[in-house]
Parts: sequence; C-alpha cells; structure tokens
Amino acid sequence: MLKNLLEPKSIAVIGASEDVTKPGGRLTLNILTKGFAGNLYLVNPKGGMIQGVKAYPSIPELPEAPELALIGVPAKFVRTALEELAAKGSKIVVVLSAGFGELGPEGKAEERALAEIATRHGVLLLGPNCSGVMTYAHASKFTGVALKLEKGGIDFISGSGATVDFLAEHAMRRGLKFNSFLTVGNSAQSGVPDVMEIYDADHGPDSPKVMITYQESIVNPQKFLKAARSLNKKGVLLAGIKAGTTQAGSRAAASHTGAMATNDTAVQALFDKAGVIRVDSRLELVDVAAILTLVKGRADGRRVAIVTDAGGPGVMLSDELSRLGFEVPAFNERTRARLAEVLPAGAGVGNPVDTLPTSPAANLEKVLSILIEEVKDQVDYIVVMNGDAGMMDNWALYQVARKFMDISPIPIIPSYESVLSSEVPLKKFREIGGCYFEDEVYLARALSRVVNRPRIYEPEKSAVGYDKKKIAELLNGCHGALSPQITREVLQTAGVRFPGQVELREKAGLKDVPFAFPWVMKVMGPLHKSDVGGVRVGIKDIKEAEMVWDDLLKIKDASGTLVQQMVKGTEVIIGANREPGYGHLVAFGLGGIYTEALKDVKFALAPLAKEEADRLIHSIRSLPLLKGVRGEPGMDFETLRDILVRIGLLVTDFPAIQELDLNPVKGYGKDIFTVDARILVD
Amino acid sequence: MLKNLLEPKSIAVIGASEDVTKPGGRLTLNILTKGFAGNLYLVNPKGGMIQGVKAYPSIPELPEAPELALIGVPAKFVRTALEELAAKGSKIVVVLSAGFGELGPEGKAEERALAEIATRHGVLLLGPNCSGVMTYAHASKFTGVALKLEKGGIDFISGSGATVDFLAEHAMRRGLKFNSFLTVGNSAQSGVPDVMEIYDADHGPDSPKVMITYQESIVNPQKFLKAARSLNKKGVLLAGIKAGTTQAGSRAAASHTGAMATNDTAVQALFDKAGVIRVDSRLELVDVAAILTLVKGRADGRRVAIVTDAGGPGVMLSDELSRLGFEVPAFNERTRARLAEVLPAGAGVGNPVDTLPTSPAANLEKVLSILIEEVKDQVDYIVVMNGDAGMMDNWALYQVARKFMDISPIPIIPSYESVLSSEVPLKKFREIGGCYFEDEVYLARALSRVVNRPRIYEPEKSAVGYDKKKIAELLNGCHGALSPQITREVLQTAGVRFPGQVELREKAGLKDVPFAFPWVMKVMGPLHKSDVGGVRVGIKDIKEAEMVWDDLLKIKDASGTLVQQMVKGTEVIIGANREPGYGHLVAFGLGGIYTEALKDVKFALAPLAKEEADRLIHSIRSLPLLKGVRGEPGMDFETLRDILVRIGLLVTDFPAIQELDLNPVKGYGKDIFTVDARILVD
Repeated sequence: MLKNLLEPKSIAVIGASEDVTKPGGRLTLNILTKGFAGNLYLVNPKGGMIQGVKAYPSIPELPEAPELALIGVPAKFVRTALEELAAKGSKIVVVLSAGFGELGPEGKAEERALAEIATRHGVLLLGPNCSGVMTYAHASKFTGVALKLEKGGIDFISGSGATVDFLAEHAMRRGLKFNSFLTVGNSAQSGVPDVMEIYDADHGPDSPKVMITYQESIVNPQKFLKAARSLNKKGVLLAGIKAGTTQAGSRAAASHTGAMATNDTAVQALFDKAGVIRVDSRLELVDVAAILTLVKGRADGRRVAIVTDAGGPGVMLSDELSRLGFEVPAFNERTRARLAEVLPAGAGVGNPVDTLPTSPAANLEKVLSILIEEVKDQVDYIVVMNGDAGMMDNWALYQVARKFMDISPIPIIPSYESVLSSEVPLKKFREIGGCYFEDEVYLARALSRVVNRPRIYEPEKSAVGYDKKKIAELLNGCHGALSPQITREVLQTAGVRFPGQVELREKAGLKDVPFAFPWVMKVMGPLHKSDVGGVRVGIKDIKEAEMVWDDLLKIKDASGTLVQQMVKGTEVIIGANREPGYGHLVAFGLGGIYTEALKDVKFALAPLAKEEADRLIHSIRSLPLLKGVRGEPGMDFETLRDILVRIGLLVTDFPAIQELDLNPVKGYGKDIFTVDARILVD
Repeated sequence: MLKNLLEPKSIAVIGASEDVTKPGGRLTLNILTKGFAGNLYLVNPKGGMIQGVKAYPSIPELPEAPELALIGVPAKFVRTALEELAAKGSKIVVVLSAGFGELGPEGKAEERALAEIATRHGVLLLGPNCSGVMTYAHASKFTGVALKLEKGGIDFISGSGATVDFLAEHAMRRGLKFNSFLTVGNSAQSGVPDVMEIYDADHGPDSPKVMITYQESIVNPQKFLKAARSLNKKGVLLAGIKAGTTQAGSRAAASHTGAMATNDTAVQALFDKAGVIRVDSRLELVDVAAILTLVKGRADGRRVAIVTDAGGPGVMLSDELSRLGFEVPAFNERTRARLAEVLPAGAGVGNPVDTLPTSPAANLEKVLSILIEEVKDQVDYIVVMNGDAGMMDNWALYQVARKFMDISPIPIIPSYESVLSSEVPLKKFREIGGCYFEDEVYLARALSRVVNRPRIYEPEKSAVGYDKKKIAELLNGCHGALSPQITREVLQTAGVRFPGQVELREKAGLKDVPFAFPWVMKVMGPLHKSDVGGVRVGIKDIKEAEMVWDDLLKIKDASGTLVQQMVKGTEVIIGANREPGYGHLVAFGLGGIYTEALKDVKFALAPLAKEEADRLIHSIRSLPLLKGVRGEPGMDFETLRDILVRIGLLVTDFPAIQELDLNPVKGYGKDIFTVDARILVD
C-alpha cells in the first residue's frame, strides 16, 4: 500500500483544469512541473487537452484503474466520483474538495457516507478538505510550490495542508530533506494514525528514520500509540504538534477541520507513551527535525564541543546549554596546546573554540581534525558556528563542515548566523546536503528536546502478590462508589498497603495488636466519634493505650475500640482516571493540604513500565520534598514506583474502574501506606 | 555628543588599507560603499591613494580634527594613535584593534592606559576589540555588510560586534529598521551603560522609540539602571540580552571580551527595575523588537483578533495566546454576519477569521475594514496571517496589510509563513516599510514578553513609623552579626512587627500580659531550656498558664518565665543581600520547612516601589499557599508588601547591612509577625 501511495504507477486527477487558480488546475500543474514517471490521467467532462495532456471525459473511460486518484471536483460530485473510482478498481483515493465536515452536521454526514463507500470497497480514503500528497516521486498537491523531495528524507503526515506547505518552506530554507508530505484533511476514513500505521506496516531497512506529524484531533489515540511505538522500535524518531488544545485553539480547530476539543493532559501522556517529541510551533518542529536528521540516531549524550568564529554566539550557546543541563566541558591541556598551534593568537582554545573571524577554512579543517581525535570520548556533539564578517570565504568554511558531517564520529551540528550576506554559499551548502540552524540558542533548545525525548518502555504485566482473579471476584457486581471495605480489599489484593487496623472488644487484645506504635484509637459504637471525644491520636505505648481504652469505654454506647497504625511522613496522591479513547491516566502528585493549591500533579497512560513510573515521580516540581526535608527520611522511590505500577495494572485489567484515588499516600522510607482511598466503577 | 557620533561632519580611519580582508581596509570599503556625506580622512604611513581616496601619512597631518576617528592599527600602535588624535582635538575615538584585555592581564593594563588618556582629554573611547559604529549616516564598521539604516529606527548597543551583524541580518530579513548599531567591545572606558547615557542625554522628541542591547558584563549596573529608567520615562521601550550568566557561558565570555561572571539573580533584578525586557537569544530579541516596532507604544492589552487564510496557523496561534494568558474573543453576531457577507462559504467568521486561501486581496481589505469598525473596543491587536498556497497574489495581500498598518487604530501584526515561495513579494513588502513574523507561535511569545514587560515605578521614600534617625543610633558602632536584642530593635524601629514577649519574675504578672493566647512559655534561668522540659507551647488560657508557671518554676535554677505570643499561619521568608555594584537584592519566598527544598524565592533591587513588592509576592510559584489553603485565612498582601517596602528602605538607608533575614515571617491576615531575624553589618 505504502509504495502505491509514494510511488504509484499511475495517477488520475478527477477535475483537472486549465485554470491553475482552481484546485484541479493547480494540482495538474504541480504534478507536471515536478515530473512524474508513471501514467498521468486527467478527467474532465469536457475532455480535450488540459495543460498539454489528453483529458478523459469520465472515470469509466480511463484505460486502467489509477493506483492513486485525486478528486478535486465540487463537494456534491465527490460521492459519485469515489464510487466510480472504487468500481474501476482504484485503491487509494484522495479527496481535495472542501465543503464537508468543516461546514457542519450535513457535511459530516456526507463524510461518513464517503468513508463507508471507501471502506466497503477496500479503498484508502484521504481527505476530504486536504491538499494532497507529495513524495520524492510525485507532487500530487494543489497548494504550495512543487518542492524537490528526496527519497530517505523526513516523512511528514499532517491534518493541515497549509501547515505542510509553511513548514516545508522553512525546513527547505534550512536544508532539511523530505521523503513525503501527506495531508489527511478532515480524516473522514483515515487520519494521521491510520497513515502512520501504513508507514509502519511497510517499513523496511531503507525507510526514512524521521517522521513528523501535525494533528488538530487525534482520531484514534490507540492506533497512534501502537503505530508510533512500533516505528520507534524500528529506529524511527518521531516528533509532532497537537494543536487545538486550548479553548480558543479548539474553537479555531473546529472551524478548520471540524476537530473536537480533547483533554491536553491525555494528549501529553499519549505523546510520552508513544515516544513522540511534542512541540507547539512549526519552527520548533523544524528545529527538532533538524537535530533528528543531523545526529543520525546518536542523541543521548549531554556534552557539547563548540567551534565558533565569533564570541557572542559561543557565549549564548554555552549559557543555554548549561541552563538546559548540558555540559560544555573544558578541553584538556594537550587538546588546548594542539588547537593553539593551528590558530592565530587571541583565538579561544578551551571550549568554545573561537577561531576568530579572520580564520580561513583551513583552520576550521585543522580544528575539527584535532577535535575528532582528541575529544571523541569527551563530547557527544560538535556545534560548528560560522558567521560572515565579510573577511573570509564562507563557502569554503561550509564545505569543511559538510565534509565532517560525513566523516566525523561525533555528530556535527552547523549553525550559520549570516542569513543575508551568506545567502549564496548557504544555498550551495544546502545543495550539497547541508542542513543547519540559524540561531544557536534555538539549536540548544531543540537538542534538549531530542535528548530529553520520551523513550518507550514495556509496561509491567504483573506484580508480586497482585491477584487478578481475586480482584475480579471482589469487583463482580459492583457499581458506583465502592464501600470503604471493598475499596480496601481490592487495593490490598492489588498489593497496595494500608495502615494496620484491628477492632477490639476486649482490653486484653491491646497486647496482641500486630503493628508498632504510635497508634490511633477510635471508639466503636457511637456514630459521631469525634463529637464525643472518641478519637485519640499519637498513642505512644501500651501503658497509654490502656489508659485511653479506659477513657473511651466510658463513652455512651461504646462497644470497643478500633486501633489503627498511625502514619507520619510526606503525603502524595496517586490516582487514575479513564479518558475515553485513551485508556486510563495514572496521576501522581504532591498530597496533603497543598494538593489543591499547588496542583503539582503529573500523568501517564496505564499500564506503566517501571521507567514510566519513575519518570512520573521525578517530574513533579515538589520532588525535593519527597526526598525528605530537614533531616527527615524521604519516601523510597522504588516503593512509590511499585504502587504506581500496581495501580496501572489494576485499571488496565479492570477498565470498568472509572476513577480511583489514593489520597493521601503517606510514609517514610519503604513504609508507605494508603491512608484513604476511593474507587468508582461503572 | 550623540549627533557627532551618529552624524559626524568628518570621519578618520587610522590604518586605512587597500586590503579589504584587513579591518582598516574593510572599514574603509564599508564607509565608501554606504556613502558618507561628510569629510572622510584616511591615514596610512605610506600615504598615496587608498580605495580611490587620498591617504594622509600621519594623524598630525590631517587638515582638521575628525569628529569621529576609528583606529584599526595593530595593538602596539594604538596608544600613540589615540594620543595624537586627542592632541589633534578629536572627541570620539573608536578602537577596532584586538589584542587587549581578552588576552590577559597585560592587555588589560594597556586598556586601562588607553582609558586614562581618553578620559584625561575628554575623549569618548569605544573599544578596543570592537567592530565600530554604523548609523543612518555612515557605516564605520569593519565587519559585516554595509546595511541600509533608517533614521528613527531601532538603536542597538552591543558588547559583541558579531552579534550586531548576526542580529541585523535576521532583523533586516524581517523588515526591521535600525537607526544605529554601536559596538563597545572590551569597554575599556565606555561600556553599554555609558553609551545608553549618551543616547539618553541627547534624547529628543524625534529620537527612536526602541533600543536593544547585548552585554556580556554590565560594567556599571547603576548607570545602566539610571539610563534605562530615564529612557523609559521618555517613552523608549527597551529589550536586551545579558549573556555569560552560567559557568560555561561566563568561561566563554571571559575569553571573548574579558567579561567576568555575575550573579544572574542580580542581573534579572536589574533588568526588571530598569524596565528592560530580557531575552536569551538573538531571534527572541528580533521578535521582541518587531513587536515593539509594530505596536507603536500600544502594548498593554491582552485581546487579539486573528485574520488568517489557513486554518492550522490560526489554531496554533490561538493555542499559544491562550496558554500565555491572552484572549481571542469570539466576535458578536453582527460582526460575524458582516464578515460572512464579504467572505466565501466555508470561511471562518468568528475569531480567527479564516478567509480561506482562495480569498483575494479585496476580501482582506473588506475584512480589516469591518474589524476596525466593529471590534476596535474589543481587541488590542490584529494579527494578519497570509501564506502562499500558490493561488493568490501575495503582493496584493501584503499591500493591504501595509496600508492598514498605517491607518488602523488597532496595531496590525503581520505574520507571513511562505518564506520561500513569497520571497519576492516579501522583499517588496519590506521595501515599503513592512515588518513581519515568520511563525505565529513565536509572535505570541514575543507579544507576551512585551505585554508582561517590567514597568518602572518610583520606589517608596518613607514609611509610617519608620524612624531612620533612631535606627542610625542603634546601628552606630555595630559590626558583624547583631545581637537578637539589637536586631529586634532595629527591625521594630523600621516598622517590622515581632510577636509580643514579656519576661516575668512574678506569677501575678501573667494576668497583665499584653497579648492574646495562645502563648509559648519558656523557663528563665537554666541554659538548656528544652532539655529540662522548660518550653511549653500552645497555652490556651490563664488557667493553663498558671499551671504551667507552677510546673516551670519547679525546675532547678528557674528564676521566672519568658512568655511569648504564639504565631500560627503560613510562613514566608523576607531577606536582603548586598550585591557589589548592584545595591541590595530584596528576597521574598516560601518559608518554613519547604524553604530549602523548593527554593521558591524571587528577588528585586532595593529600594522598592509598592508595585515592585506586589510583583515579588505574586511571582513565587507557591502564591496559592499565601492565599490560604483548606479554608484557612491567607496572608494579607498589603501587609506583606509593607514589610518588603520597609526592608528595602532599611538596606538602602543603611548600606552597611550586608545580609538581613526575616525567617520565618508568619501569620494570618494582617497579623503577620517576624518570628526570627538576623542582621549582618560590616
């Protein structure tokens, strides 16, 4: 399927036109301009010649079933065209025409009809309201210019056609290469996740290693997750934008592609679990794609060598890298001496290396040769910056960088600041396969996003003592909010610890309470325990406990005491919430009286891998509090992680759980207990 | 002075050369290329003709004292050249030559010698190691291309010559206009603040309204503060970069311009007090400068109308604006109806307005005309976005935007995405004075920086009950850490409240304690009170107090009790720290056991205006805690503000105070007390 989309043997344009301001005319022009090696069929009721190519009056008259057909006729004629193409035997149909779901319910209904027809005939339907497909082999797109794509470049799958064009222009200006641009428009049948699935299914060893996406709604989160994770495992690095996440943004998206608002927390958790770097703007996406392209899969280290010919940019880059947790390690004596030997007096030879603007290309060549020998085990990337002070031949400098991009064992990341005065050499640099940044601070930010990208892990499938069968029995027939007793039993059976408690009818039982002091003792019998002074906390020893027993039993209606283990320590909350289409979001955050005020909570999609649970714990702002303050012991992170994993398992195994809250979860070290809990089932 | 710098009647190049790869040669070429209306004098020992202009063999032989002289000879000849120019009567000398402070102590000494000579002769010295000056009237810069500047554009004063060039190229590509570029290099005599002072001194009604700066060290923070505040008051909007603020960055800066590391907290507080928007990258500075230019001083509102011809960018802009606290208000029925009338079916008429890519310039003209009539009181800015789908004449669209930039009562901010396919019309747009963004998300971020820019306020000069004379008496002769008693008296005299306390020798005195319960009672006499059970907290009434008295007096050596008011409530810390060159930084943050762990503290330069104290309080992350959690009353912000203002006054009036800490400051409502305090004096 993918090959038919990227490299079809034949393409048909339904609604071809001589008028290039019309979609069908522009589409025809673009295909012709870019060139297409297969058979191009134009369809127009008037027949004749269009833009120099023979046009067929109708689809049935076409000499063969086009592998890829694009429909650019008015909305009301689209259904017939699709039916005719399906009957003819076409398996990929792209509907460019607008006037569907983005206009309201009627258009939405017509979209559903198109999807139904396509699915019935086993046709992949893209659109309606999309701008087409452009690949290394054809430019079947009706907006934008016909750009030169390159097999093996980046794949870009987008819900917005214009975003493809606008991103492409910026990306091409920076030397990025694309394998394909694919737009899905209103996603009547197939959205971005469906197309990702096609790319994944046909992924081979020579397939592109970078994929980027733009979505206003995620039509099928589970499919997105599955395809992205699968591509990740095959070595593809992914980044994307999910727009329309604020109220204003989703109002804008609704009128654009009919996208519906989604919970941004769920979206972020989805991207994290899918291993997709999430950004908010086209230029950020271009920057991240540039890093992904330049580092060639080597993007885990945090040590950077800087080679610059101007001081200021070296300072700003060093600052930003430091702020982002990267190192710009100082070079050792021998490296400095070797650099000093080949550079003019006054040059910087530590890190950054400042070659000075008066250094010719030969100096850069020497510097890079020395660095890849001397610091290849000390740094993970070399950023090469060159401006144009008007004194050197920048084309010569760029050629050196280009050469080292191929031969250096350390990825080379070029940053070229003189976008106007070096316009010509920069164009030449792009033509020989160069790719570069225009601002070193943005470079650092993109590098940080890539190095800190979410990794994919295998979720835990079981946990010691987690008894799925028994939980099923406990939950059997339950509805709504579970009773405290069932809640406790379900969670204990899942392996969650509660403070110990025993109900005593006899004072003598106090000696056999199976947990340590301090205790809480509550009178049993009276309904409003607190009102009658029936709750005592901080009981320190058996002597005090016996005194308290005597006191409590004096209360009217007292029938015994409930003895509970008293838990001290930091408080956190752990919860889970079902998000339609996404599964369950597991929440982790600071608990206690600050929960509401500080809203320091993070989310991840269930089930969780240990590493995801760790990431959750480490992502809250209040992390230092969990480690213990003022000499108090902190909470053991392995224990917290274990609870998170168990909660993730529980909600995955029992999707009927709508909401679940452990609040607070409290303790020191490994002694972490759930003091209160709540489960809602439907 | 400023006019002589920007529009000198005569310029001399000392070290002029035929070789344009040498600074003196390049400088001469740039001046000639750009054109200069005054007298240009070249000096070279060989005399003759250089680049077609007569050269004088020596400075004394020049026919007049050049108003502006630039020295481009090797470092060792610079001192003589400066002396000769001073003797000749030149009042502005720019030393381009490198080889001074950036090389080490010897160079630093030579710099000092140059500064001394210049100052003795009343000469303004810029450099050494700078790249010169470029203004609307001359291009006396040896790096970069000779750009076309425009009187009334932006002034850019920079510590890095290359940064001027690199920023300029990006800025010019976006249509920004510059009045002057000025580089100060190593700032031997005059740094960025000194030059700002000159611009301020000669600021007139027609002077530029936007100034940007780049500094690696702030050579004179007080002068920077004064000049920036003064310019601000004259309506100039300022933004700048201070680089070299991390360890790696300052190491890079040291080898670049010899800049020393400074405390970044102090730098941020300085920028805030000076009313200068701080950014970290050149492109961010370009973006902020573009907003400052486009909004023409109208940059306080948070309501945005969006007009786009493509959906995706409208969605991303709406999202980012929302995230940043801006509104994209939905238009009312009448506005929507009027827009629908002039736009094709399927166009968006709410906000964003989506004209669709098939709308010609005439539609944009109608839309903007309707908006400035209908929503001029509902929005503060109109963002106009146009891409190039290849179907419309973008030059016509840009001309409409350009026209409305002039006539619209609401500032128009253009954002044009098609940087490649619209290259030609964009160039024409710049030529007719257009200025634009290339990414709408970056646009939103820059707008947010501008709207949230620090404002300047007049610090409080006194406070009710603040007795400066008495504090002076108390501090007279003090050194090192003040005693608890003196600390308390100093702070109380400044108007800071402490919890009440009385020392009692007689039990009868308990009835006359002048503050409310609860109390803390501490035995007097024994040294280690806690060890002997001599501290009791939470005493609720007189009965309990009398019982505690009896208990405490039983302790060996007991001579009475110290009775203290017990304070409950949220804890904050308030402090002050002297930062050499900057004055005192007043600190405000979350107190209690979380101080160390959460490090939630912000700083402002003393003395404080009420508004600055407010900004401090509102800038900490834990702000919601101060407002009260779980039904507890919060802290009264006016009371907190008052304490901050008093602390600002105290350290300003008594600069000998090196450190001061009120920790914790605690309470509810207006009853906020300093429970513990510490003052260090030198």
